[in-house]
Amino acid sequence: MSLPQEKLQEYLTFAHQLANASGLAILPWFRAPLAVQDKGGALFDPVTEGDKAAERVMRELIQARYPHDGILGEEEEAVAGSSGLTWVLDPIDGTRAFITGLPLWGTLIALNDGEQPVLGVMNQPFTRERYVGTRDAAWCNGAPLKTRRCASLSQATLMATTPDMFDQAQRAAFDRIASQTRLMRWGGDCYAYCMLASGYVDVIIEASLKPYDVQALMPIIEGAGGVMTSWTGGTAQHGGPVVACGDPALHAQVLELLAGKG
Amino acid sequence: MSLPQEKLQEYLTFAHQLANASGLAILPWFRAPLAVQDKGGALFDPVTEGDKAAERVMRELIQARYPHDGILGEEEEAVAGSSGLTWVLDPIDGTRAFITGLPLWGTLIALNDGEQPVLGVMNQPFTRERYVGTRDAAWCNGAPLKTRRCASLSQATLMATTPDMFDQAQRAAFDRIASQTRLMRWGGDCYAYCMLASGYVDVIIEASLKPYDVQALMPIIEGAGGVMTSWTGGTAQHGGPVVACGDPALHAQVLELLAGKG
Repeated sequence: MSLPQEKLQEYLTFAHQLANASGLAILPWFRAPLAVQDKGGALFDPVTEGDKAAERVMRELIQARYPHDGILGEEEEAVAGSSGLTWVLDPIDGTRAFITGLPLWGTLIALNDGEQPVLGVMNQPFTRERYVGTRDAAWCNGAPLKTRRCASLSQATLMATTPDMFDQAQRAAFDRIASQTRLMRWGGDCYAYCMLASGYVDVIIEASLKPYDVQALMPIIEGAGGVMTSWTGGTAQHGGPVVACGDPALHAQVLELLAGKG
Repeated sequence: MSLPQEKLQEYLTFAHQLANASGLAILPWFRAPLAVQDKGGALFDPVTEGDKAAERVMRELIQARYPHDGILGEEEEAVAGSSGLTWVLDPIDGTRAFITGLPLWGTLIALNDGEQPVLGVMNQPFTRERYVGTRDAAWCNGAPLKTRRCASLSQATLMATTPDMFDQAQRAAFDRIASQTRLMRWGGDCYAYCMLASGYVDVIIEASLKPYDVQALMPIIEGAGGVMTSWTGGTAQHGGPVVACGDPALHAQVLELLAGKG
């Protein structure tokens, strides 16, 4: 389904309410002693009290206001909706950053219209930054975002959250590309994608992502003029191996270098 | 020389003035288009306009107020003093973070009494966090800091800025220790040391550091109850391979594992 402009505006206003509420739920747990619980996945995947509290409050708000919308969240069971719209939530993306005290985690809120995410929010309540995108435009705290031009890998700044996210073939492909860039930095999670949307980072290459890790970021990056796809150029919305570039010309180059490696 | 308590207080007040002035000099350059210049070292080492402007303003303040103190800074020539005291300055520690828009860089200000750094400041003007230490105590924005207990590597959270800082033997030693920890995260620079002082990170193992990368952090970590030395247990003030732990018992363990590898 396609969402009319005035409905999109209404949902955007509501997404800000979700961001406000989740920020209040999470902040008391940031830099406080945490009860960490390992889900037992291959990656260390801590679930904090803040994570659960924030997803709970967002689900309650959605179910009260839009009871026919679906919900896909990290912490609780998926809710099938009947409206064709689904809220895709990651209350704390960047759990390693969160538990080490770094303000690089964020709350990810996306609305998917059944075809693709049509609005996305990355909320960082400690630094008080809120990145918002609607595919046509993107903003941080109301100021328009624009990716920067960078047509050559040799001039590019590359980021990825952690080497652990890659399998062996993916890591080899990543390393080959990283060796051609001007600068590479590990660590970043959702915050790195917002820096790309803001024009400070040129390329992000990651893997092992979940749908709720990426859907909120897609409308922000696309709205700022960037491109975000799977390693084979398909939609990024299902997660897995993902590549984002500020400059579409660079994205085409990177996809060629990644061909067959995703 | 040993600095009397009332002199230390006077210098601490002055260090806050340096932090205020450097923050004002740097902030206009953060997330602004930057003129990046490669110094040509083995690591990519960008020097920003903010770096130079901040060191300039701090040097001017020191030379006006304490003309007999020495100055060791990243950007300009060392000034030999006659007072026995030396200011050790790194206007922007974490240049990769800075140019990628991440608020994990900081301005490092230390006062060395000829034997060791006796006060240190890490100022992060974007998040408005100021970490201060005097070896006896440490604070963030006035609130006391305390490292956390963590006597076992298997429960520890480990950080390091980037794998590029290690040579091959160092990297092997680092990886062996990292594999025994509960959680490892890349990226952090000076901010990671302040998270260790705050009790969110247990161990930091790094290498290839310069004196101005470490001296401001030592009084903060020691003041919060932690230990920071070279890999062989000597003073960390000359930089090189450095290890910091929140729990002294963990530090002893880590030194044993690093023996002969620094």
